[in-house]
Amino acid sequence: MSRYSVGLDFGTGSVRAIAVDLESGATVAAAEEPYETLESPQEPELARQNPLDYLRAMETGLKRLVQDSSVAPEEVAGIGIAATASTPLPVLEDGAPLAAQESFANDPNAMAWLWKDHTAHAEAEWITERARELRPEFLARCGGSYSSEWFWAKVWHCARVAPRIVEAAYTWMELCDWIPGVLTGAGSRVSRSVCAAGHKGLYASEWGGYPDVEFLDALDPQLARLRGTLPAEARPAGWKAGELSRAWAERTGLPEGTPVSVGAIDAHLGAVGAGVAEGVLVRVMGTSACDMAVGRMTEQVPEIPGISGIVRDSIVPGWIGFEAGQAAVGDLFAWWTRMTDQDHRALTERAAGLKPGETGLLALDWNNGNRSVLQDPRLTGLLLGATLATSPAEVYRALVEATAFGARVIWDRLASGGVRVGEVVACGGIAEESDFVLQTYADATGRTIFRTSATDATALGAAIAGAVAGGAYSDFESAMQACSGKKTDAFRPRVEAQRVYDELYELYLTLHDAFGGVRADAPLADVMKRLLRLRDEARQA
Amino acid sequence: MSRYSVGLDFGTGSVRAIAVDLESGATVAAAEEPYETLESPQEPELARQNPLDYLRAMETGLKRLVQDSSVAPEEVAGIGIAATASTPLPVLEDGAPLAAQESFANDPNAMAWLWKDHTAHAEAEWITERARELRPEFLARCGGSYSSEWFWAKVWHCARVAPRIVEAAYTWMELCDWIPGVLTGAGSRVSRSVCAAGHKGLYASEWGGYPDVEFLDALDPQLARLRGTLPAEARPAGWKAGELSRAWAERTGLPEGTPVSVGAIDAHLGAVGAGVAEGVLVRVMGTSACDMAVGRMTEQVPEIPGISGIVRDSIVPGWIGFEAGQAAVGDLFAWWTRMTDQDHRALTERAAGLKPGETGLLALDWNNGNRSVLQDPRLTGLLLGATLATSPAEVYRALVEATAFGARVIWDRLASGGVRVGEVVACGGIAEESDFVLQTYADATGRTIFRTSATDATALGAAIAGAVAGGAYSDFESAMQACSGKKTDAFRPRVEAQRVYDELYELYLTLHDAFGGVRADAPLADVMKRLLRLRDEARQA
Repeated sequence: MSRYSVGLDFGTGSVRAIAVDLESGATVAAAEEPYETLESPQEPELARQNPLDYLRAMETGLKRLVQDSSVAPEEVAGIGIAATASTPLPVLEDGAPLAAQESFANDPNAMAWLWKDHTAHAEAEWITERARELRPEFLARCGGSYSSEWFWAKVWHCARVAPRIVEAAYTWMELCDWIPGVLTGAGSRVSRSVCAAGHKGLYASEWGGYPDVEFLDALDPQLARLRGTLPAEARPAGWKAGELSRAWAERTGLPEGTPVSVGAIDAHLGAVGAGVAEGVLVRVMGTSACDMAVGRMTEQVPEIPGISGIVRDSIVPGWIGFEAGQAAVGDLFAWWTRMTDQDHRALTERAAGLKPGETGLLALDWNNGNRSVLQDPRLTGLLLGATLATSPAEVYRALVEATAFGARVIWDRLASGGVRVGEVVACGGIAEESDFVLQTYADATGRTIFRTSATDATALGAAIAGAVAGGAYSDFESAMQACSGKKTDAFRPRVEAQRVYDELYELYLTLHDAFGGVRADAPLADVMKRLLRLRDEARQA
Repeated sequence: MSRYSVGLDFGTGSVRAIAVDLESGATVAAAEEPYETLESPQEPELARQNPLDYLRAMETGLKRLVQDSSVAPEEVAGIGIAATASTPLPVLEDGAPLAAQESFANDPNAMAWLWKDHTAHAEAEWITERARELRPEFLARCGGSYSSEWFWAKVWHCARVAPRIVEAAYTWMELCDWIPGVLTGAGSRVSRSVCAAGHKGLYASEWGGYPDVEFLDALDPQLARLRGTLPAEARPAGWKAGELSRAWAERTGLPEGTPVSVGAIDAHLGAVGAGVAEGVLVRVMGTSACDMAVGRMTEQVPEIPGISGIVRDSIVPGWIGFEAGQAAVGDLFAWWTRMTDQDHRALTERAAGLKPGETGLLALDWNNGNRSVLQDPRLTGLLLGATLATSPAEVYRALVEATAFGARVIWDRLASGGVRVGEVVACGGIAEESDFVLQTYADATGRTIFRTSATDATALGAAIAGAVAGGAYSDFESAMQACSGKKTDAFRPRVEAQRVYDELYELYLTLHDAFGGVRADAPLADVMKRLLRLRDEARQA
């Protein structure tokens, strides 16, 4: 009898394995194993991970999960996998990572290219340019520009700087695809995630899946060759990718034949764990923020300018998934603690004592660029309204408000595209820690913000996918109904605060449009870019 | 035989008395005596000083100056007086301050209204409105609006909130007029300063001196009555106001009959001490900054929009004096040390190591409003271009650059009005302490910046006025030639830095015009004002 499901969450610094009770959704056991990121002072945009580290960490984690808990291995319905994306790695046909070959050992280009690796920014721009010319429909689906963090840009960059890697590889796999390939023994033939393919790989059923060979050939023949190794169709989480191989059964203590789900991106399965649904948006708030929503499946996928991910089945199978985000949230607040040499607690305490509007300040939350809806990584921060009496806590409050306004821009944009954002479930470190931030979000956006009862939403979402793949539920939504986190701790907008924030938001939009280039006639549209150019010239001088 | 002159400088916190060698301009003796400012937590705009404190401090200071030095009293050619302005006080006909009357003792409204007292902002606005309607020529001379810091606004505010004071007073005198009245025994009949009258009291020979009775009556009949107690003509520094009375000779040890000069505003006599001349602007850099320049006397006084003080004879007799300034310079840097909990030295060291443009930042120096050329005290600060890597020292550098750009706006505006600004002599605390600030000013403005050899420029300027009043020199300029500070420590603009700063300055002007309301069609013109309104509403709620 199946009583449990196992979820694996390959995050940036560790893999987390949990076992979930299939009736209550409660986490009954958990294990976490860290791994390293290879970074380079000479090349600050580079971030790689050794795929063998993933395997070692997964083996240890699953073994401990089974050994140290009361979960009987035979009661596990299935295994689901969440991972960072786009984190592609070059592999042989049987799925063996190139990094495991002696001739490629310790070669960073043969490792997994971590999501935050930005070495491929030139290739990303070229892809955007070629797509604008040849396949504008690609750009409409990913918000107007292809990112240096994504699959094709990374592979192309590797083909240019390390061609022998791309030549030696049979194919490239997203981490969330590679793990199911390893666990099932299917290697590179395993079903691939429609979530990762759609959000990072320009995959859409409308144009026959992955980008066509003609387009890829116009970029680089190596990409056209790679296209031949990709499946015709990618699959949603909950789709059975295969069964646990004997080798991995022996390594972990889980039974051979345990169903393994197709993987998905960590944030998206986090939304599943937090209970995303029609009208209920999930916001994952950590160093950055990711907004996830679902909309009814339609013949035509809506095009919403500035929303960078619109993909069928990518979050909840049967629904269109929408993904957007902010490039800095917790990172922005942490920056201010460094600037002022004060800690979050002290700043929060004083900031929370202020009334909306009382600071006289207004900020743009662009210190790390703007992901949605402007999709411009080279925008920068702005702080307006300081006097000689302005205090660190007042600025801290203004920064929190700025991220709330940035979120409101995203949510309003989704709503204008027909994706209702009635309520918001916030999860992630900031959401767990700060009542002040969540109440400010409620007041500044006019929406009720909830926390979720799920403490480990991403791994829980992966476990839900595992349960569905294992047949413990007839469909994905029933599994979510039973296991996803419940809404807790409602932060509701307060009328008076909302009135002030509506006016501040109007001013925020004025600055947003003027400096973000929305009003191209505004003389301010290029101020930030020219400052960056002067900075870069000064650094190179 | 006259070998020395005495200068008195009534600053915000103390009076400084020096004796100057008439041949070399060297300070041979000095004494300083502090006094208090009455402030009120309930009314933060209020700042008053007890006039009896001025007298006590002056008596002690002059006595010590004579006793503790080798200066023989009979060798003193004359006494000159500099004081903060507009710092008016209500007096009886013999010059006795109302504050000395038992019935007004300890009444703040009967004291001297210190320059930085802003309680009269409503009256200042009304004066501006009425003048715009009835006497637009008044506004043209003071830069478009009358300030709450100035004479008529303060007296009017007193008439409204404490009418019995204004009724009991025979007249009101600027501090720099009252002191000569006291020292000579001439009381309220002493010659008044054209510098204070012109820069703070709407005095100009073109319209017959002080504002006409008809205009003042349209404001308040009490002001019209006060007009009758003011002289037809005001006089420049160096004009002999009278001779030291027996009473004050006995109090100080200086000989009865020592000539006393007409007073002037401290900043203006500071410019004299620092060697202001045609083409040589003097910038006093302390908590705020004051720019002083002179231009050739012409039939028509030039009108330069945004330059708040254009007055004949106000700095150097025989020349037109121009005064402008920035509301926060040292105050702005000090604010940032408080924000970041770092000291000037550490911030300066790191900021000085950066190249022009390297911060990627641009700031507007308006945390205390903009005095020149926008003349809008309700503008606020702006910081643009921060990333997650922006450091406290980078912002510090951007703030220094912002004040330099603000200075460049003023100097360019003066130049566009025909007042050549070829070189700049910087004095005041910041100029004395920071090579980094002066080099940045040179690079960012394209002008050579000097220090002055005068260590006490304001008191030196007062002593020069005293020497001229005492006949030690045939004219003011000869006295300056002999005694004013010499240019030292040249900071010259560096070509490469200038190139970068020229581009940054263009961006600064873009922000300046957009947020300063110069381009009224810009949607950003009212952003700062609306934030202040929301702040004020929140505070009152």
